[in-house]
Amino acid sequence: MNKHFITPLEKLAENFERLPGIGSKTALRLAYSILKMSKEKANEFAEAIVDAKNNIHYCKNCCNFTDKEICDICTDKSRDISTICVVEDPRDVNAIERTREFNALYHVLHGTISPLNGIGPAQIHIKELLERVQKNKIKEVIVATNPTVEGEATSMYISKLLKPLGIIVTRLAYGIPVGATLEYADEVTLSRALKGRSEV
Amino acid sequence: MNKHFITPLEKLAENFERLPGIGSKTALRLAYSILKMSKEKANEFAEAIVDAKNNIHYCKNCCNFTDKEICDICTDKSRDISTICVVEDPRDVNAIERTREFNALYHVLHGTISPLNGIGPAQIHIKELLERVQKNKIKEVIVATNPTVEGEATSMYISKLLKPLGIIVTRLAYGIPVGATLEYADEVTLSRALKGRSEV
Repeated sequence: MNKHFITPLEKLAENFERLPGIGSKTALRLAYSILKMSKEKANEFAEAIVDAKNNIHYCKNCCNFTDKEICDICTDKSRDISTICVVEDPRDVNAIERTREFNALYHVLHGTISPLNGIGPAQIHIKELLERVQKNKIKEVIVATNPTVEGEATSMYISKLLKPLGIIVTRLAYGIPVGATLEYADEVTLSRALKGRSEV
Repeated sequence: MNKHFITPLEKLAENFERLPGIGSKTALRLAYSILKMSKEKANEFAEAIVDAKNNIHYCKNCCNFTDKEICDICTDKSRDISTICVVEDPRDVNAIERTREFNALYHVLHGTISPLNGIGPAQIHIKELLERVQKNKIKEVIVATNPTVEGEATSMYISKLLKPLGIIVTRLAYGIPVGATLEYADEVTLSRALKGRSEV
């Protein structure tokens, strides 16, 4: 930063830099773009940040983000309430919704068990999942955490917790992504795809 | 967007999408990251937008962004006030300042002459440049607009305007960028580099 930098602009750029995937150059570019906006658009942007932060909270049932007490998915009467799909992040709910293949409920953990980062089962929303399972007639819990070490550990933990309650706990299938080639698939994925093979 | 989308989140994502280089997926990712921030950080971000927009305006002298009446560069006594470097955008001032090779004044046009987009000399800050040149003892004007069609046209226009006043009008050198290889340089750049060759 040179000595002729303008303080309010610098502050704005610093705020942009806190966002994920935004480096210092992009942050400065975005800050300049705010200056080029109309005053109305800039105020609207600022209000949208405050509004979103003030009005969006966790759904009391599934822990997904919502601006209501119970989210639209949980109150949707057309959904199968005996199946819960457990995901790490609210964005994963959107990803699964986009497939239009799933018509049951979700539970958002907001993280994974990760002892190295000091995150245990108590820090993510597993307790709420257990309560839901005990209170309602849940048949199946699909654990859709990511296929990472932390995602696997979390899946294992949930499975050990729920199986004694007579719940079917399943995991998403591993395999070759559609459109990919065998040549570039890594060994672990390929060996999982072999194990999970099905009759044509 | 699926029907379970949360309105304040959607609005925030729309605002992010207005920024340059931010597509709909990134906008949504950034909107979610606001929800994960502390309330203080989110409010600080919103305030930084409003603050920057309210307090930053054009310098009365050089049209660069500033939060004062006259910017720090224009009031800097150590600078050569007989030379003005004309740039398209405030960010170009930062780029040239970073070289630490230029110690004179700037003039920011905030655009280029572009008849196709309906932008003539009156829409960019050329009038203010002419006034500065007539009022002060300027010896040289370095036109540092981009080497694009519009940048060239703007440079030509400024040159025709200022030369009759006895001002030396210069243009940045064209050539091979430092670190690039001849093999990948385009023909126009290479031919300009040949024309601009200098003795070793």
